[in-house]
Amino acid sequence: MKISLIGDGKLGKHLYKVLISIDQIQLLEWVVRSKKECKTPEGILMTNKINQHEISDLYLLAVSDNSIKEVAELPPNDSFVVHTSGAISLEEIGRDRAGVFYPIQTFSKGSDVNFTEIFIGLESKNSKDLMILKKLAKLIGSKSFHLDSSQREQLHLAAVLVNNFTNHLFAEADLICEQNNLPFDLLLPLVKKTIEKLNKLSPKDSQTGPAVRNDSKTISKHLKLITNKRLKKIYKVLTLAIQEKND
Amino acid sequence: MKISLIGDGKLGKHLYKVLISIDQIQLLEWVVRSKKECKTPEGILMTNKINQHEISDLYLLAVSDNSIKEVAELPPNDSFVVHTSGAISLEEIGRDRAGVFYPIQTFSKGSDVNFTEIFIGLESKNSKDLMILKKLAKLIGSKSFHLDSSQREQLHLAAVLVNNFTNHLFAEADLICEQNNLPFDLLLPLVKKTIEKLNKLSPKDSQTGPAVRNDSKTISKHLKLITNKRLKKIYKVLTLAIQEKND
Repeated sequence: MKISLIGDGKLGKHLYKVLISIDQIQLLEWVVRSKKECKTPEGILMTNKINQHEISDLYLLAVSDNSIKEVAELPPNDSFVVHTSGAISLEEIGRDRAGVFYPIQTFSKGSDVNFTEIFIGLESKNSKDLMILKKLAKLIGSKSFHLDSSQREQLHLAAVLVNNFTNHLFAEADLICEQNNLPFDLLLPLVKKTIEKLNKLSPKDSQTGPAVRNDSKTISKHLKLITNKRLKKIYKVLTLAIQEKND
Repeated sequence: MKISLIGDGKLGKHLYKVLISIDQIQLLEWVVRSKKECKTPEGILMTNKINQHEISDLYLLAVSDNSIKEVAELPPNDSFVVHTSGAISLEEIGRDRAGVFYPIQTFSKGSDVNFTEIFIGLESKNSKDLMILKKLAKLIGSKSFHLDSSQREQLHLAAVLVNNFTNHLFAEADLICEQNNLPFDLLLPLVKKTIEKLNKLSPKDSQTGPAVRNDSKTISKHLKLITNKRLKKIYKVLTLAIQEKND
């Protein structure tokens, strides 16, 4: 399978690493706007212009959501162009052969990614192209599944809840620990258990704590402890949400 | 070490299991208000009255926060009474020999607890009694540390954030998945990664997503997708909090 990879952000870099590690994949070019033509240490052509003569089986766009529309116009005519975003509709790629290859994962600079542990959401305008995406997912060892743009948008929203928002709660807890001379690590076994329970119980069924048991004494005590307006709002909104959901 | 355990809620049951599994611990009695005197299958005396003649090295209260004050009056004079709550002050035990043995963990019915992976926060009125608590933590294989009531209250608040609130976000994500015919399991590798990153990066440094990159297009798209008022509030408050914290 011949692939052109476009973009060298966090996801682009992780995709580069996995694509060059698979024998059955030939990475024809890594297209990065700001780069002069050169070879990567692994011998892959880095370029700022897509080769219009040798056509890849797919053009994989790992660019920011705002650039997808524009960059999707650059690959050769009749080629298969695929974006990797959770939030952008398939229609944003204004071509007959368009697809989505959405890895449900968070990509950070300092943290390795194991693609064999990732689910990839696939979408394409025609079923033949879907087979190419399935094959690519299989080659890099990921599990894949088919969804439509509306499902993908909802899944992306859910991903923001379980990753971005959860991480922010950790950041708030980290701050509390720091301000009270306690290492955040004390909370790690609890965090681990919170996740572990998901394997056995639905999150709704495993809800514990002052909110779900309507322990108003502890709730008001906590609200008194919180001096920060931002955290006070978070505490109130989530406490109410837990109580409402379990009424 | 002779111990009397009081209470048979979720924590009480988990403590019972671990206490009877340790050779160096003699569980004198398991005191449960609603029980007629009997023996447990493991041969431990279950009773509704504390034995006033044979005195234990400590009386471990695994009762609800509201009952601590009252139940703490029942053990024999001069004995060492210890509660297990994160939220209740040491002073609530109106005795000279008072202590706290606070396991930083969530205890659910359907989920086993491994005490060797738990941190236990210890507090006591006098340093000699603190040694008893340290010894008990060590016997059941837990790591322990000393903190004061104010630190413990703050740690308990932080625990609510990383456990209860995080779990509620999972419940909201679960609901989104259900409503869109997607299995929640698709999100599990992402959840796992969110936690894994805590070992390498501070949560503040590993924050990703539309809020932290001020991606107002995706944020308004998400707010349009959310029909539920409760979730809309959560989304707004947490998005603002992430943006404020990272300004």
